[in-house]
Amino acid sequence: MSLLTETIAAIKPASTEAMSAAEERQAMLTKPQGSLGLLEGLGTRLCGMYAECPPPLPEPVAIAVFAGDHGVYAQGVSPFPQEVTTQMVGNFLAGGAVINAFGRQVGAKVLVVDMGVAGDVPAAPGLVVRKVAAGTADMTAGPAMSETQAQAGVDAGIVVARDLVAQGNRLLVVGDMGIANTTASAALISVFTGVDVGEVTGRGTGIDDVMLAHKVSVIETAIGVNRPSAADPVAALAAVGGFEHAGMVGYLLGAAALRTPVVLDGVIACSAALVARAIAPHAADYWVAGHRSAEPGATAALAHLGLVPLVDFGMRLGEGSGAALAVPLVQAAARVLRDVASFDSAGVTDRE
Amino acid sequence: MSLLTETIAAIKPASTEAMSAAEERQAMLTKPQGSLGLLEGLGTRLCGMYAECPPPLPEPVAIAVFAGDHGVYAQGVSPFPQEVTTQMVGNFLAGGAVINAFGRQVGAKVLVVDMGVAGDVPAAPGLVVRKVAAGTADMTAGPAMSETQAQAGVDAGIVVARDLVAQGNRLLVVGDMGIANTTASAALISVFTGVDVGEVTGRGTGIDDVMLAHKVSVIETAIGVNRPSAADPVAALAAVGGFEHAGMVGYLLGAAALRTPVVLDGVIACSAALVARAIAPHAADYWVAGHRSAEPGATAALAHLGLVPLVDFGMRLGEGSGAALAVPLVQAAARVLRDVASFDSAGVTDRE
Repeated sequence: MSLLTETIAAIKPASTEAMSAAEERQAMLTKPQGSLGLLEGLGTRLCGMYAECPPPLPEPVAIAVFAGDHGVYAQGVSPFPQEVTTQMVGNFLAGGAVINAFGRQVGAKVLVVDMGVAGDVPAAPGLVVRKVAAGTADMTAGPAMSETQAQAGVDAGIVVARDLVAQGNRLLVVGDMGIANTTASAALISVFTGVDVGEVTGRGTGIDDVMLAHKVSVIETAIGVNRPSAADPVAALAAVGGFEHAGMVGYLLGAAALRTPVVLDGVIACSAALVARAIAPHAADYWVAGHRSAEPGATAALAHLGLVPLVDFGMRLGEGSGAALAVPLVQAAARVLRDVASFDSAGVTDRE
Repeated sequence: MSLLTETIAAIKPASTEAMSAAEERQAMLTKPQGSLGLLEGLGTRLCGMYAECPPPLPEPVAIAVFAGDHGVYAQGVSPFPQEVTTQMVGNFLAGGAVINAFGRQVGAKVLVVDMGVAGDVPAAPGLVVRKVAAGTADMTAGPAMSETQAQAGVDAGIVVARDLVAQGNRLLVVGDMGIANTTASAALISVFTGVDVGEVTGRGTGIDDVMLAHKVSVIETAIGVNRPSAADPVAALAAVGGFEHAGMVGYLLGAAALRTPVVLDGVIACSAALVARAIAPHAADYWVAGHRSAEPGATAALAHLGLVPLVDFGMRLGEGSGAALAVPLVQAAARVLRDVASFDSAGVTDRE
């Protein structure tokens, strides 16, 4: 049995028993019923994921940033030079990027997974080398990668999740780095949601109207050439995805198989989540939407996934930054069920 | 010179120099410009508050929960018995309430200030006794308190803020407890925003349509009887406010005078903020809106204050709970300016 098949088989729905227990418990705690809004439902979901009520405190936390380069970069879809992918990986490993600052804020370690960066990344603590190839092929001329490469990428991501859970992490964060990866993400989102390319394609790092129109036509070309279908998710991933997407798909599946929640970041992570859910629908039970990216494709993907984001700051950085910000909010939701006294135990009178 | 006069005189606008320096710095950091959305403006504002760029890390953090009872409770505006105020103060001091759980999550200490609880609160670590009286008078029959009492409450809040800053806290959170205090808050919000009582009055801990209509008419009666005016903010506070509101007004002014940011909670804190801003307009430079409460008055108050909330979970608990959740987000905004490498220093190429 392949690693992927084994992982899919291990993914069980969230525990309805633990969720029922959580709902009962929420009603007994010293707060007016429903007064914590979204956070109550999130706490209940966490119980379902861990199959425990109250849930464990979701810590330690690990952030995995999956990095890769994209052949479609050659079509002129980004204002940044491609070597920025490699340079930013260096910045992550040196601790100088936003995700490092946020990791320090929330007490999470940051790991970089080189899934397919075009440049050479010197070995460093925190670097996991899983390079499938030095960047994908140009998806406007054929599939971005072979199905064998896509499978290898997914397997690598499963192993990353397994290793992090084996190390004791109880909450995972998924992030990305890859110049031009909003192009691949928009393609995946259009394929898996059925929404038009023009509606799910955004400005990425910040492009003008002319480059945006060009980006839309590049994606339409890639979809026309490859004819990816949501019914064959690994083939669709190979056709218009990236190596970092493949790694994230595996990571999302691997975590779900181990009942470990993952906080999703923006448009890149959400596009990978669509692929992962198409492969194993119950995996989505284990995901929390960290934030709503400013990229229009993120909103389309979140709606399709049925997830409500926790943070909504109009961010569009990637790296896992929006997801990292949500970590203390997820932990707070668990703490309510763990720490708060009941009306009875605290000697507080409930409403008449 | 009175403590209040001295405090008002010490409140200076946020530093425009530090904010300009922050804007320049934001543009040099290794992230696409504007890619952190709201968080960039927040980081810039923090520089203005502390008059330093980069800003200090906003920690340690202290949460002050101002508690009081309300004479208007007798009019039947809450489904909870009045003794719940005293009972919940006991719960805070025992560490069993939601604000304690959230305080632990964000590494903040929780202080309870008894501004005017009707019951007796036994001495305990974390309790600050500043009781003006055992609950306000019924505002439908005259002012809730005398102006002397309002002044005493404001002074008490100033001293709480001074003490917490003197103890080294660099970020303050304001919370509340008081059965029936959404009634007083809606009255203050209507007076200070000019919005109709019916539009700013909500369901508080959860009341039905009949009680809500009654609550609106009770507030309209109180405003009709007392004729409070935003032009005389201390008199208006005395007329339709609560002792916890008076304490919060002083706390907000006292923190601003010491250039210390305060994270606002929901509708109670926002109503006090409106009073404080009417007393000293530049005090508002030092406030961050922690969340948007489900109470309609909170949205009206935030709009009037010109503040955009960080968390929007439909919460309506009070205690400082929504503000506490926002603490790591505020700290993350500061970390961006403190920790993130520049394009130059990290050797990352900026866009062409």
